Amino acid sequence: MKFAIAQLNYHIGNFQENTWKIIQHIDKARNENADLIIFSELSVCGYPPNDLLERKEFLDWTNQAIEKIVAETKGIAVIVGAPTINASQKGKKLHNSAIFINDGKIEKIVHKTLLPTYDIFDEYRHFEPNTEFEVIHFMGMKIAITICEDLWDDQPTSNSFSKSKLYITSPLDELSKLNPNLVINLAASPFSYDQEGNRKKIMQQNAKEYKLPIVYVNQVGAQTELIFDGGSMLINQHGEVEQELAYFEEDFRMVDLSHPSEISVQPHYSNIEKIYKALILGIKDYFQKTGFKSATLGLSGGIDSALVAVLASEALGAENIHTLLMPSKYSSDHSITDAVQLAENLGIRYDIVPIQEIVDSFDMAMAPVFKGLPPGVAEENIQARTRGILVMALSNKFGNILLNTSNKSECAVGYGTLYGDMNGGLSVLGDVYKSDIFKLARYINRENEIIPVNTIVKPPSAELRPDQKDTDSLPEYELLDQILFRYIELNLSPDEIISQGYDEKVVRKTVRMVNINEYKRFQAPPILRISSKAFGFGRKIPLVARYEG
Amino acid sequence: MKFAIAQLNYHIGNFQENTWKIIQHIDKARNENADLIIFSELSVCGYPPNDLLERKEFLDWTNQAIEKIVAETKGIAVIVGAPTINASQKGKKLHNSAIFINDGKIEKIVHKTLLPTYDIFDEYRHFEPNTEFEVIHFMGMKIAITICEDLWDDQPTSNSFSKSKLYITSPLDELSKLNPNLVINLAASPFSYDQEGNRKKIMQQNAKEYKLPIVYVNQVGAQTELIFDGGSMLINQHGEVEQELAYFEEDFRMVDLSHPSEISVQPHYSNIEKIYKALILGIKDYFQKTGFKSATLGLSGGIDSALVAVLASEALGAENIHTLLMPSKYSSDHSITDAVQLAENLGIRYDIVPIQEIVDSFDMAMAPVFKGLPPGVAEENIQARTRGILVMALSNKFGNILLNTSNKSECAVGYGTLYGDMNGGLSVLGDVYKSDIFKLARYINRENEIIPVNTIVKPPSAELRPDQKDTDSLPEYELLDQILFRYIELNLSPDEIISQGYDEKVVRKTVRMVNINEYKRFQAPPILRISSKAFGFGRKIPLVARYEG
Repeated sequence: MKFAIAQLNYHIGNFQENTWKIIQHIDKARNENADLIIFSELSVCGYPPNDLLERKEFLDWTNQAIEKIVAETKGIAVIVGAPTINASQKGKKLHNSAIFINDGKIEKIVHKTLLPTYDIFDEYRHFEPNTEFEVIHFMGMKIAITICEDLWDDQPTSNSFSKSKLYITSPLDELSKLNPNLVINLAASPFSYDQEGNRKKIMQQNAKEYKLPIVYVNQVGAQTELIFDGGSMLINQHGEVEQELAYFEEDFRMVDLSHPSEISVQPHYSNIEKIYKALILGIKDYFQKTGFKSATLGLSGGIDSALVAVLASEALGAENIHTLLMPSKYSSDHSITDAVQLAENLGIRYDIVPIQEIVDSFDMAMAPVFKGLPPGVAEENIQARTRGILVMALSNKFGNILLNTSNKSECAVGYGTLYGDMNGGLSVLGDVYKSDIFKLARYINRENEIIPVNTIVKPPSAELRPDQKDTDSLPEYELLDQILFRYIELNLSPDEIISQGYDEKVVRKTVRMVNINEYKRFQAPPILRISSKAFGFGRKIPLVARYEG
Repeated sequence: MKFAIAQLNYHIGNFQENTWKIIQHIDKARNENADLIIFSELSVCGYPPNDLLERKEFLDWTNQAIEKIVAETKGIAVIVGAPTINASQKGKKLHNSAIFINDGKIEKIVHKTLLPTYDIFDEYRHFEPNTEFEVIHFMGMKIAITICEDLWDDQPTSNSFSKSKLYITSPLDELSKLNPNLVINLAASPFSYDQEGNRKKIMQQNAKEYKLPIVYVNQVGAQTELIFDGGSMLINQHGEVEQELAYFEEDFRMVDLSHPSEISVQPHYSNIEKIYKALILGIKDYFQKTGFKSATLGLSGGIDSALVAVLASEALGAENIHTLLMPSKYSSDHSITDAVQLAENLGIRYDIVPIQEIVDSFDMAMAPVFKGLPPGVAEENIQARTRGILVMALSNKFGNILLNTSNKSECAVGYGTLYGDMNGGLSVLGDVYKSDIFKLARYINRENEIIPVNTIVKPPSAELRPDQKDTDSLPEYELLDQILFRYIELNLSPDEIISQGYDEKVVRKTVRMVNINEYKRFQAPPILRISSKAFGFGRKIPLVARYEG
């Protein structure tokens, strides 16, 4: 049997484009004499559709798209992913399904069994799980069709206090009773740099354990926060990766099961390279899918905004980036010269708009109300918010999206001004710790000095008061990030972190800062997710909660 | 058997206070010779704890609190709600449980069977459902203990395209096989004005269908967005409400099952009265639970900010409200006089800070960048954002929380400025349609003119350009709100709405405005929820999604 793996970038709700893409690839596969072509999870409507699944018209459009696709399957078999209506009178109204179409006819619909409801997933919200297991008979083969999480039954729960299995059912245990000779998995598995090796390992373990080849078809592309990295695979029954498709881009591959071709896998990338590619894809797709072309951002002369400018130039083209330099009386000279140097290195537009007069007009206006009170955070925030207004004015005037430049360390401890530097349509670095920001900057400068070295080596500062340094209020980032990673990604308790040798006072202070700043993150822009636990809808902490201890 | 119903206001994660409250009411019940006292769902830790349930320390604190409670149950039985560890090696690590304690010992732990995962609920994220059914034997009675959703098995799915049942299991079908003589339901059921009658009806239907009395114990109080309204009940086996506890406040009631007391139910309130009470409770609890005392807001002379000022004064005391009037050159005279009149009627502090000079300084600073371009939205937003900075400066300086004054109609169609009038720590009216804002204002003025009549009768305007009216860009609110309610709360498709007689062009334009403004709502403050479908985490629409048609 010859089959094609189609690893494509879908757009949620854009049925016209998704359908066109799917049909185009069916044609391509047919032209290459494929017997079967496989698309990824919910490919027809895009993943994750979230509450659009509650809308009748969304389901109507899905069904219309499926009809169009079915009509284009003369002489070939196709597996696409789509939501389908639960035929039973009980339970959630939809299934998350794989539709097996053969030569112009839907022959079988297989539903997803394991519905993830952790982190960014909440599939149980809309889907009823499958409970009956069948294989597909096709060209003398028995194929077990599974959907994403169905092969992840062996994972532990996400709670730090337990190592037991998250699921009660094992789909492959059930399916293997039917003696399949191939497992197909339609996936929508997002990238996270700290979990990424897991995926391959789990697929390989499954192949070995059940002695079955597995075709894993992932989607690629970003859907708001989530970045799907592709990396579709054919793994043989010994657990070896025989075919591996590209990461962070669309790909298409023909595989002949009866005539094994040469092994073809992807080159090894470091975590930093992967994060770099992921963020560029994240920016590119957010703009393309929302119909925008150009971006705005403030350049402070610091490393975060410099990095965002580089990534945005790469994603959107230097000609589509419009930056503002907004010095105040606390800005050091190098802030301007470093920012100008960066802009010139990248060939992006920059304008210099000094903010001091605006800030003074705010201070004057509030003087009668603030009479007798010493200046403090209120005045510092006025500066950050003045800049926030200026970049938004630019965005409104020219129809650009403002890119937010806050990093994960700052977001975590609330070191940022709401309605000021926290503004933006998309947060590019909100899931990247400051320590990794430095690594990314060095990676970008590996051949030429694109980001001025001074921007990288000077001590980070918000420059909202004289001689301010981040370390005035925060631990050194190297240490801070280690504590944050343990508290946020690893979900360790403060006591557990302290028992690993971290200073108790620093740990308690850090945890406290994280907790009391939930309210700021609540209003943050969507954050491109590159880790296993990003701020945003994958992490729900009630704002009014008290955290004891 | 004599038992006590404890309808209390818990605070998520505040184990010290919750435990103290629970023990205090155990003492009170014992003093009144109760055999049993019943608390509501997850009373020990507060509902909803969300991802705090993934933290080991949170579970440790829960268990310590339960130990303390158990130690205080000499001579009485107690049912409290708490998360408990799933003893099985498979499945989610926790159950949502009712703990039956008798005379210093935990005698039984009953788990929730039906885990809601729609709208604001996502209990399947953390809890494994119960699958085995048992009754409690106590004082010669057989008691079926259920938790909230367990009695809601009969509801339809939330999809507009289906009327089938949401759940496969019916806990009362199973439990009734064990011949109980009483059903107890520990609830955490939030208020929504358009669904509120449902709850009583469902409980009454259950009582009648199974011919069993039901004790329904709800929590009261607000947890960030969610407002729990209390209204605990005893319903007899004929489906009659015999006892009904207070709405929107804590309450405690002794019931003697063997000696029925007189029927005691609550007075009837109109929807508007309920919304009024709900919003006040929502403000009060947000401040109290986050440890704040005082609020800031901008008074525009319009009805939305006037209403928020009234509600906040009621919730926090007039002495804790500090308002700003921020006229620009487009502000009409009545904007100031109406706002001043309101502030004086309420006895709240107000300062007048004209914004024109600040706005001019922005325009001047951006002039070189905007050279040759006509003024437009960018300049209008600068005004709204200048005001946003000023109220935030007040909030920062005095440690107040800024109350947001946007209404649901505006939020829905994106008629508001991000980082401007959309600022705030809490949105008071973000779930209240403009039509209901008028009704609330008239309700408030039912005896005295608290809100100046001119504020109510003048045509709504953002006053960001000369002679601007909301109806320049929007349909009349009466019409707009009807379309919005059908699209958002009822989840009808545009075609369905049009088929009800609404103008096609207006419907399509309205739906389009709702869809293209998801990005603004993504960054909105938490919104006090009073309807069955509020903006916020109960409604998840992917930002990059395309909406065809």
